[in-house]
Amino acid sequence: MQTAPAKPPQVDAKLIVPFVNAVRHVLRTMAGWESNVERPRLKQKQGPEYDYSGIIAFSGTLIGTVVVSFHRDLAVKLVAAFVGCELPADTADFADAIGELANLIVGAAKAELGVNASISVPTVIMGKGHIVARPSDIPCIVVPCKTDAGEFAVEVSIKAA
Amino acid sequence: MQTAPAKPPQVDAKLIVPFVNAVRHVLRTMAGWESNVERPRLKQKQGPEYDYSGIIAFSGTLIGTVVVSFHRDLAVKLVAAFVGCELPADTADFADAIGELANLIVGAAKAELGVNASISVPTVIMGKGHIVARPSDIPCIVVPCKTDAGEFAVEVSIKAA
Repeated sequence: MQTAPAKPPQVDAKLIVPFVNAVRHVLRTMAGWESNVERPRLKQKQGPEYDYSGIIAFSGTLIGTVVVSFHRDLAVKLVAAFVGCELPADTADFADAIGELANLIVGAAKAELGVNASISVPTVIMGKGHIVARPSDIPCIVVPCKTDAGEFAVEVSIKAA
Repeated sequence: MQTAPAKPPQVDAKLIVPFVNAVRHVLRTMAGWESNVERPRLKQKQGPEYDYSGIIAFSGTLIGTVVVSFHRDLAVKLVAAFVGCELPADTADFADAIGELANLIVGAAKAELGVNASISVPTVIMGKGHIVARPSDIPCIVVPCKTDAGEFAVEVSIKAA
């Protein structure tokens, strides 16, 4: 008997569209930035490397994590647009701003999802060229976000509990 | 009228002791390692830097995060003792092992806490010299863990919801 080839995990568009909308909305209203979100794709290998990541976990009817990751140049510009002045990178205030941006994006997406799930406080990683890894049993969807100042990524790795 | 000096946040020992016990238990049973946990202390400034961190969020009656952080040399040795063979660092399997160790430690502590809280799936950061930052409104307690192969830290930043 032949074994069927492993199917790639299915991506539930209903889980992803709210994050696309949330990125556009939060960047426009909180930083005055327009952004284009490219087609979300299934992440199939580890990486890429980032310099700043804001991490928020879901629990309840949805479990998993969402990570908003930036390279340094874009993070410095976006935080300046968000808080209204340039903050020195790698300070606690800078980390707070990255965490708050992640919280606003994930919070807006959660509201649109309309699910009975809770989101954690943000944890922020600062470190040139770090990799974020997650358990392999939850598919990870990369939402690539383009702005005039560069690109960043929202990586959504959640599923029904 | 004089303003009273800001009091340092109070540390609730009942929240911390289960993590001390969990570290000793998990290292002994899962890696065959003995460990000594030094006196937990309030983390008062950002840093230090680590190479690998396993991050788990609490939600429910407790909120916040717990981060288990390692330098590279110790991580490589501990993962080898845990899985029974040396794994190449920075691979997905290596990250899974770090995440599972964090999950075992936090899961054991949660069981002893006996609270109605849930813990998230682990997120693992791999990146030489990264810093983990958290919201400043939840005190962070560092639990320093000593083993024959070196030191690592469990940083507990949780509070009643």
